[in-house]
Amino acid sequence: MHQPGNNLTQQARLDEVRDALLRLHRLDELAHRQHGLQPERVELLSHRQALVDLERRLAPLHPADIADVLEALPLNERLLVWQHLRPALYGEVLLEVSDAVREHLLEQMDDAAILQVAEHLAPDELADLAQDLSRRTLRELFDNLDVARRARLRSALSYREDQVGALMDFELPSIREDVSLETVLRYLRRFKELPEHTDKLFVVNEGGQLVGVLPLRRLLVADPERLVSEVMAKEPVTFAPEDDADDAAEAFERYDLITAPVVDHQQRLVGRLVVDEVLDHIREESQQEALQRAGLREEEDIFAGVWRSVRNRWGWLAINLVTAFIASRVIDAFEGTIEQLVALAALMPIVAGIGGNSGNQTITMIVRSLALDQVDTSHTRRLLLKELGVGLANGMIWGGVLGLVAWLLYDSPMLGLVMTAAMTLNLLLAALMGVLIPMLQVRLRRDPALGSSVIITAMTDSGGFFIFLGLASLFLL
Amino acid sequence: MHQPGNNLTQQARLDEVRDALLRLHRLDELAHRQHGLQPERVELLSHRQALVDLERRLAPLHPADIADVLEALPLNERLLVWQHLRPALYGEVLLEVSDAVREHLLEQMDDAAILQVAEHLAPDELADLAQDLSRRTLRELFDNLDVARRARLRSALSYREDQVGALMDFELPSIREDVSLETVLRYLRRFKELPEHTDKLFVVNEGGQLVGVLPLRRLLVADPERLVSEVMAKEPVTFAPEDDADDAAEAFERYDLITAPVVDHQQRLVGRLVVDEVLDHIREESQQEALQRAGLREEEDIFAGVWRSVRNRWGWLAINLVTAFIASRVIDAFEGTIEQLVALAALMPIVAGIGGNSGNQTITMIVRSLALDQVDTSHTRRLLLKELGVGLANGMIWGGVLGLVAWLLYDSPMLGLVMTAAMTLNLLLAALMGVLIPMLQVRLRRDPALGSSVIITAMTDSGGFFIFLGLASLFLL
Repeated sequence: MHQPGNNLTQQARLDEVRDALLRLHRLDELAHRQHGLQPERVELLSHRQALVDLERRLAPLHPADIADVLEALPLNERLLVWQHLRPALYGEVLLEVSDAVREHLLEQMDDAAILQVAEHLAPDELADLAQDLSRRTLRELFDNLDVARRARLRSALSYREDQVGALMDFELPSIREDVSLETVLRYLRRFKELPEHTDKLFVVNEGGQLVGVLPLRRLLVADPERLVSEVMAKEPVTFAPEDDADDAAEAFERYDLITAPVVDHQQRLVGRLVVDEVLDHIREESQQEALQRAGLREEEDIFAGVWRSVRNRWGWLAINLVTAFIASRVIDAFEGTIEQLVALAALMPIVAGIGGNSGNQTITMIVRSLALDQVDTSHTRRLLLKELGVGLANGMIWGGVLGLVAWLLYDSPMLGLVMTAAMTLNLLLAALMGVLIPMLQVRLRRDPALGSSVIITAMTDSGGFFIFLGLASLFLL
Repeated sequence: MHQPGNNLTQQARLDEVRDALLRLHRLDELAHRQHGLQPERVELLSHRQALVDLERRLAPLHPADIADVLEALPLNERLLVWQHLRPALYGEVLLEVSDAVREHLLEQMDDAAILQVAEHLAPDELADLAQDLSRRTLRELFDNLDVARRARLRSALSYREDQVGALMDFELPSIREDVSLETVLRYLRRFKELPEHTDKLFVVNEGGQLVGVLPLRRLLVADPERLVSEVMAKEPVTFAPEDDADDAAEAFERYDLITAPVVDHQQRLVGRLVVDEVLDHIREESQQEALQRAGLREEEDIFAGVWRSVRNRWGWLAINLVTAFIASRVIDAFEGTIEQLVALAALMPIVAGIGGNSGNQTITMIVRSLALDQVDTSHTRRLLLKELGVGLANGMIWGGVLGLVAWLLYDSPMLGLVMTAAMTLNLLLAALMGVLIPMLQVRLRRDPALGSSVIITAMTDSGGFFIFLGLASLFLL
């Protein structure tokens, strides 16, 4: 990316801030050694110069870039940079940082500072901060707002995070339908600036009901004599505040929207949904998903303490411990078999591992297709047949190879056969469960992605051990 | 989502098309049974009516919705629907469907049909199709284009899929800087329509070099007497065609862009990057990542045959087989130990499994922070200390619990101690590798996400077996 006049990449900008911080550190240490001064007390000229240098480097940065710098700094340095930001930037920066870092920064601010920041924010932005504020701060915040803003903040807070109402803003560039485009153009010139990302004006009647939208693209090319009602688009895509944010995001992608009106049950215009909020939502969702897949409860502040991280990773490890323990009990049930043929202990993790991998491939495929509405439960039989086919093919091929290897390693053709049979059966089990688990979740009206990987791995582990050791007991002893 | 006048959700629309297809099927079967006719030969009135019904239901759909319908249909029915689309829609629908489905559809079209579709597409859209065309078709396509379009197509094809040049289009609403806004407004009215998503006009000099951008938001509110040069933004964010598409996507998110100019080394305007292309790119990347994490080489057409799927999932299973085999050899080396104490065989998968999970949590965290530029290799020591701390805490807690359980189950306090020690050591190994593997990948200038999960699982498996069985050999026999 190139910005004439500010040609630094993010990494280079970050490095500059780091350099400035490093100089500060060195000065502090020096002062401490030479004069026995506490770092906070250092008031030497060189120290003040280094601080000025830091502020100078922070000044030209975009709030989104400052947010990145803060996220990338260890706790102490993060606070130092925070304290040397222009307070006017606090609000925007707080909106840009990750949840974990926002929480950390807000902890450091007193109520007065928070209320001052709040003054510069729109109601929809305040709503984003509100979840990290104490009950008391939030009450004071409400008391400080004028009636209109208070109503909007209350409205924004009344929706769940995954609803359109929580994402919409209240900047509504609206016009009437019975005026000429010329009049509209003259009307617009009375504003100092149109709301960000305005790509269309909302056309409303006297009751505040939406009757159409006028894209700027049309306003600019159409004959100024014509009426708004003649030029406007009459059936725009609209959303309700209660709509699911994911569905709205999908509609934005599908119909390539930039902004869209949000209307209530009486078709009254109540808000505006903008692509950048939608984009943020998509990114947060996909990150959340990636973290959950690895068993992390939420986004971690990479520089937070050990205990916070331990707690964040707790749940998944506990579940995994239980499933591993069950698998261990299955093995224990075949103690006698293993005692007689220790090779089984060496081979059994292969059977379980390949089953788990194959099952995860199937379940990822199915969950994805369900999410994209490409399949539903009516396809269960067809998908089952296909996946069982894939499992059978993989079982015969890879199981065959591994069976041959086992035969040669332990000089026992029968052990090879048991190995091949067990791998094939476990892959068939993986295919069966890979289709049935997400389909069952859908039937139970639950998110098919939730915990799917844990469940299938647990099944192919315990199942794999049982099948392999069971077959061995039957045919090898 | 609500569209007054077309209030059907996607699922309902899809169901309608399915119903129409089902009626066709039943008629075909009936005709076959009653008259012994082949389905293709059926020319009964009822059959034709059902076809008309299908076409009627398809007609009002947006190309993106038709693409979804096609993706969700088994192969035969997909072709039937395809054949009953208006050919004018072919191009747009082909651009919207997934890669796998596009390939399938293009296979069914002859050169003449493809060339006809191509006529309605812009050069950047043609470039998206080009990768799925045969060399011969592509040559004919080039021969059919006029000089300007040929040059643009060649330009679009000359960039890799992950470069800005492959995402940009060539719709460049540009103006001069020395004219008044009044003149610009009059100039714009000569067009029938501005390019989609136009939120700014590009200001260029006689040499075609970009000197600024004029946001429509400013054009509409500023005094028409003023000159473009007074009102335009002089330092817009620009991209080069060689820029990395991921970086561009990040800049779009960071600076909330809708469109951005693409310039060459001499600052000459060569293209335009639009948020919807960027959004598609982000979605494709994140899907690709999710698939690769599960070891799927590429997007699968969920209705494609078994063999195609087997080949798609081949590579990962092969790698996993090798790592599982290595782990198996580690176990085999302790054959004597297991023979004397079979309980070890039951407990060892727990040690390996928890290590793998914990390692995956660490590596996910680190890879994510690296991707967001929150950390770099200079943080290795600090992160290592933290993750080792987390590993130690988890090892003492969960290892302690499991050690106690092992003690009680097998009535051997020493076995419990070995269990606790092995789990703690394996969690420390997981933490060590979870930090070092991605950092090393960065040092080697490779994508830290690539295969990270496979590598760490392989290490904690083999490592876990080795540590547990090794400790057992030393202290229990």
